[in-house]
Amino acid sequence: MNVLWIMVDQLRWDYLSCYGADHIKTPNIDWLAEQGVRFNKAYVQSPICGPSRMSYYTGRYVRSHGSTMNSAPLRVGEPTLGEHLREAGVKYSLVGKSHMTADIAGMKRLGIDPDGEIGRLIRECGFEVVLRDDGENPTAHPGRRGEDYEAYLRSHGMTGDNLWEEWANTGVTPSGELVSGWMLENARYPARVPKEHSETAWLTTRGIEYIEAQGDQPWLCHLSYIKPHWPYLAPSPYNDMYGPEDLPPVNRSPVEKVADHPLLQEWLKMRVCQNFSRDDIRDTVGPTYMGLIKELDDQLGRLFSFLQESGRMKDTMIVFCSDHGDNVGDHWMGEKDLFYDCSARVPLLIYDPRPSADPTRGSASDALVEAIDLAPTFLEVFGAAPRPHILEGRSLGPILRGEVPEWREFCVSEYDYAARAPRRENHIDQVDARLVMIFDGRWKYVHVEQMRPLLYDLQADPNELNELGGDPAFAGQIARMQAMHFEWCRRHHNRLTRDAATVEAATDRGAPPGVLIGYANKEEVDRDGRIFPVHVTR
Amino acid sequence: MNVLWIMVDQLRWDYLSCYGADHIKTPNIDWLAEQGVRFNKAYVQSPICGPSRMSYYTGRYVRSHGSTMNSAPLRVGEPTLGEHLREAGVKYSLVGKSHMTADIAGMKRLGIDPDGEIGRLIRECGFEVVLRDDGENPTAHPGRRGEDYEAYLRSHGMTGDNLWEEWANTGVTPSGELVSGWMLENARYPARVPKEHSETAWLTTRGIEYIEAQGDQPWLCHLSYIKPHWPYLAPSPYNDMYGPEDLPPVNRSPVEKVADHPLLQEWLKMRVCQNFSRDDIRDTVGPTYMGLIKELDDQLGRLFSFLQESGRMKDTMIVFCSDHGDNVGDHWMGEKDLFYDCSARVPLLIYDPRPSADPTRGSASDALVEAIDLAPTFLEVFGAAPRPHILEGRSLGPILRGEVPEWREFCVSEYDYAARAPRRENHIDQVDARLVMIFDGRWKYVHVEQMRPLLYDLQADPNELNELGGDPAFAGQIARMQAMHFEWCRRHHNRLTRDAATVEAATDRGAPPGVLIGYANKEEVDRDGRIFPVHVTR
Repeated sequence: MNVLWIMVDQLRWDYLSCYGADHIKTPNIDWLAEQGVRFNKAYVQSPICGPSRMSYYTGRYVRSHGSTMNSAPLRVGEPTLGEHLREAGVKYSLVGKSHMTADIAGMKRLGIDPDGEIGRLIRECGFEVVLRDDGENPTAHPGRRGEDYEAYLRSHGMTGDNLWEEWANTGVTPSGELVSGWMLENARYPARVPKEHSETAWLTTRGIEYIEAQGDQPWLCHLSYIKPHWPYLAPSPYNDMYGPEDLPPVNRSPVEKVADHPLLQEWLKMRVCQNFSRDDIRDTVGPTYMGLIKELDDQLGRLFSFLQESGRMKDTMIVFCSDHGDNVGDHWMGEKDLFYDCSARVPLLIYDPRPSADPTRGSASDALVEAIDLAPTFLEVFGAAPRPHILEGRSLGPILRGEVPEWREFCVSEYDYAARAPRRENHIDQVDARLVMIFDGRWKYVHVEQMRPLLYDLQADPNELNELGGDPAFAGQIARMQAMHFEWCRRHHNRLTRDAATVEAATDRGAPPGVLIGYANKEEVDRDGRIFPVHVTR
Repeated sequence: MNVLWIMVDQLRWDYLSCYGADHIKTPNIDWLAEQGVRFNKAYVQSPICGPSRMSYYTGRYVRSHGSTMNSAPLRVGEPTLGEHLREAGVKYSLVGKSHMTADIAGMKRLGIDPDGEIGRLIRECGFEVVLRDDGENPTAHPGRRGEDYEAYLRSHGMTGDNLWEEWANTGVTPSGELVSGWMLENARYPARVPKEHSETAWLTTRGIEYIEAQGDQPWLCHLSYIKPHWPYLAPSPYNDMYGPEDLPPVNRSPVEKVADHPLLQEWLKMRVCQNFSRDDIRDTVGPTYMGLIKELDDQLGRLFSFLQESGRMKDTMIVFCSDHGDNVGDHWMGEKDLFYDCSARVPLLIYDPRPSADPTRGSASDALVEAIDLAPTFLEVFGAAPRPHILEGRSLGPILRGEVPEWREFCVSEYDYAARAPRRENHIDQVDARLVMIFDGRWKYVHVEQMRPLLYDLQADPNELNELGGDPAFAGQIARMQAMHFEWCRRHHNRLTRDAATVEAATDRGAPPGVLIGYANKEEVDRDGRIFPVHVTR
């Protein structure tokens, strides 16, 4: 068995037709959904790239791995899925984006050479890097690479000083003017790069090449796409495949705009929210966001055809997910951030080729799933030890087999907004800029340190337009959700060095050999079957 | 400035005359108290050796460093005081016990040679080991050494296969019979080792030799005594310096014996508690416990004389503390465990030679102090960066200078009893065997996962004989303490890789250079003073 783990960046679940979208058709992704299980309530551990991915890649909550913000290095020594899988003999490879920031200072502290064999793996979050590209200006983020794509574009005749910026992130107006993809108002112009050389097409090809090159060793390939993450620029014809009339109605209410909560008030003041609240901006960016998704779906069609033709569908589990969504103007917001379903809830499809998964093909699961559930799922696929003392999620294996396992009652997502303007505007201390979402399948509660919580009832209000946290009528619900939050907070999450079997053996044994605690006399020692460390009469 | 950090193992605060004991005189320790500040409310982070010490040595709560049980390795990469001090040019040395268990598996995972220069430091919790001896049978704990003491005893003419067991831990009856120090009923016999070669005398000499050998480099010497920790065996004359009539009255009540709380019920069933509930056992062990303290005080007198005569009192801060107490039959218990003041509260004396500390000499502080406060205190002494994103305690410097800093409202201590019999007897899952003490200076609250909490009012009941957690009249207090516990649980404690300045700079900067998020057009970019990554017109 192998695993092809496809991740897409900033993709909303409700912009896929298999999740009920009727404004866009994604037949290839839908096809995958039909081969396996569609998870309807999958949440990421943080609605922002870095922390979300570090949770995917470690199988641990954000509070546990500690990389709470983009660019906060993942502490050296934090165990990664790569380490667990490598111990089980699995090749764990990256093709695309990871958003990993290495803890170089920590590596230095421990005497680990970042360029050594193990150092390279630690630096890359446990991945054997086939290709690393985080989809941003490589000159801005030298650690995140981009040189491969530069070289690729150059080999196809494109020229310039900074090829990603000048081709992938540059649009062309009808008059031939070159404009920046960073500007939202340019989103409808076609990218200068042709579609056959876009990041999405290129990564698809590289993923296929990776799979073609594999031999007998089991592998997990993390094919990690960059799009539809901003900059919002799509190659022709995807740039004008959709228009404003194709967008779903914007999901926002006037009440939200004048929120009585200081966090929301400050959040909506941010430029990205101000701009995405403008109809003209949403009408410009939204269709391109859809075009990028359509392009992705087309490329996945190419990938899935390859898998079918090469026979790989028989021995490859395929997982499709996103690291978070995109607000696209909903709730008067741009970007991701906060925990609305358009942001914290993600698509998750799993195709398991084994006959044991036949009963669930084409079905959907409403189980509350967390991103950290993938790591234990993969360990189970490869027959590796489960390590529940390290991994905080649970294997989705039983659900894929149609079993009805005992399951969690709530899922959790976190957000550290210490480096965001609303923290400063509200005079919140850096260490108190903590948000925690608790969602039990109906009630979505957001703990806001130093402020009152937010609350939504997704049964009565699936669009999350009525925020109830300030209404005394819901004090009981809030107390119930707080108790869940507290229960989650209290759990062990750093006790990584002792597994359950070791603890059980220590319980049996009492004190270590040679140590006799609390015995009054020799009779008690004899009765217990313990022995004296040296020969004495009593 | 240098620091001599004296730690004693299993020493109760109320068995020292400077803390008001009138059943024993400890004039040398009292003398130190008069030179500096006596802390009246100092609590350890866990009332058991390993976790308590890992908190002392990392400056972090047990839930944070993760070594929650004795013998649970401290995870590789967990930052230690030694690393912080070494960066500040300080020599950080161990003479005696540390109870460190190295994460050899983790080191292997990261490719760190445990015998390399850095590997040795990691393995030893950041200490440069002058001498490591955890005071137990070296054949039982090869990692914890003991060979030095073996060699020392041998060099003084003692012979045998296992010298610690056969001399330090063997008593001699009046008829010359050799008996084991592991048996409580043997506690009154003199140890076979003469007092001038006991562990306490030997470590004192080694500490003096260390200080004598130091040159210009600032140093912190952790002189870490093994006694009065069990086995309870004292060399002559300390073995019969006290009798049962010298013991303070036992602190226990009949109500405690029939506790209505399942945790306490099972705890009291353990052999060590059953035996320490017997008057004959307490009367046998207690006087020897006192004798070991008296021996320690005598040896500290020798050490303090050396410091005075060598002029080292002028440039050396002296810290005296314990890693936890000993119940000695109080509350029907032996050993440490749980959070009674005889166990979780410890003596803490700090002598600061600098004139800035003159105003507080001979005074006492009632501030709620935690063991983790020492690490930041030491960083301040040596002028090192404070690192509040890693260290969870606060420097005691202001208190030593007589300032009145804003201070914490409660202190915390933790206990993971997963490997203890009461966990199994109560059918508690391993991961739920969590106890957390919250003490606000008056109310002591103990969270017991899966059971009702414990509560004591130390103002009305300083002896902690009336457990109030089941009394509905105290529901309000319990709710108040729970809120403190929850607040503590929520705090960041793994966000180690980003300091406050870096977060502040990221807040200023918004997105990284070369990344422009949410700008509608060029005018907005210009207004913000941002620049396009490449030359485009708009």
